[in-house]
Amino acid sequence: MSPLSVILGIDPGLCSTGWAVISAPVGKNKPRALAYGVIKTKASDPLNTRLEEIHDGLAAVIERYQPTGAAIEGVYFGLNAKTALTLGQARGVAILATAQRGLALGEYPPATIKQTIVGTGQAEKEQITYMVRQLLQLDHDPQPDHCADALATALTHLTHIQMPTGVPKKELRT
Amino acid sequence: MSPLSVILGIDPGLCSTGWAVISAPVGKNKPRALAYGVIKTKASDPLNTRLEEIHDGLAAVIERYQPTGAAIEGVYFGLNAKTALTLGQARGVAILATAQRGLALGEYPPATIKQTIVGTGQAEKEQITYMVRQLLQLDHDPQPDHCADALATALTHLTHIQMPTGVPKKELRT
Repeated sequence: MSPLSVILGIDPGLCSTGWAVISAPVGKNKPRALAYGVIKTKASDPLNTRLEEIHDGLAAVIERYQPTGAAIEGVYFGLNAKTALTLGQARGVAILATAQRGLALGEYPPATIKQTIVGTGQAEKEQITYMVRQLLQLDHDPQPDHCADALATALTHLTHIQMPTGVPKKELRT
Repeated sequence: MSPLSVILGIDPGLCSTGWAVISAPVGKNKPRALAYGVIKTKASDPLNTRLEEIHDGLAAVIERYQPTGAAIEGVYFGLNAKTALTLGQARGVAILATAQRGLALGEYPPATIKQTIVGTGQAEKEQITYMVRQLLQLDHDPQPDHCADALATALTHLTHIQMPTGVPKKELRT
């Protein structure tokens, strides 16, 4: 029996951090979703409290599902500096949570995730949701968007670590 | 005898995070530096390793010096999105380290720190270093700049929490 890859996907944000855990036998392309959800924080709470909630929420997910790898959605740089700073702070504590458990972390730009999941770097959110549902054989649309994005990020990572038998090499260059 | 305020000042950055611990009897304006330093990370190391080093370094400082409050330098938004994201990630793990020890966190924009320490929001780095040295009665210039900034941030916080007897009220509005 092949060893099992259990991948944590993360779509970080200060208000809402999406997470997803998927699994697949290494070398086979039949992933399934173990769990997914969002960590929401209140805008009325202090920043330090919110960052601690994101960190501790992800640490609890890691503790519960024991992933063997992790991946995070990269950043689209059409942001302004203030938004980028806020996102960066959430990303920092999310990345830390994976590092503290010794998980190697993959990072994939949004266009790479869209290309891998839908086949085009310009895919719409609805297409991502549709393809995630198909690939994981879910009986419902993963909601909210942060969850679909976290699942897509985990699937992208799984595809890339299965690269030798999985997808064409040119995808590595996207 | 007055209770002692022990303030941790932080000037976060991915390559170099400055920290400083100062103390002063509450209500009196005779602070002294207990310790200061920088946490440096290697550009050749993975991001998750670097963020963990910043977090763990600050956690060790907090464990050793048991500050009663913390303050962080705010961000000048003339940054581009990529720089802001990188800085945000370092800030996120720094803020988390203070939150995990239950420390309330003050944040002061660079102009407020300059105004408080030098008397003008347009002060140069050399002026900050000079005034920090005078205020803390150091026998040397605090170096590198990240340390001087961390000391200045801690001094600014101390000034603001001592506000009733310390500095004119108008400083609160800068």
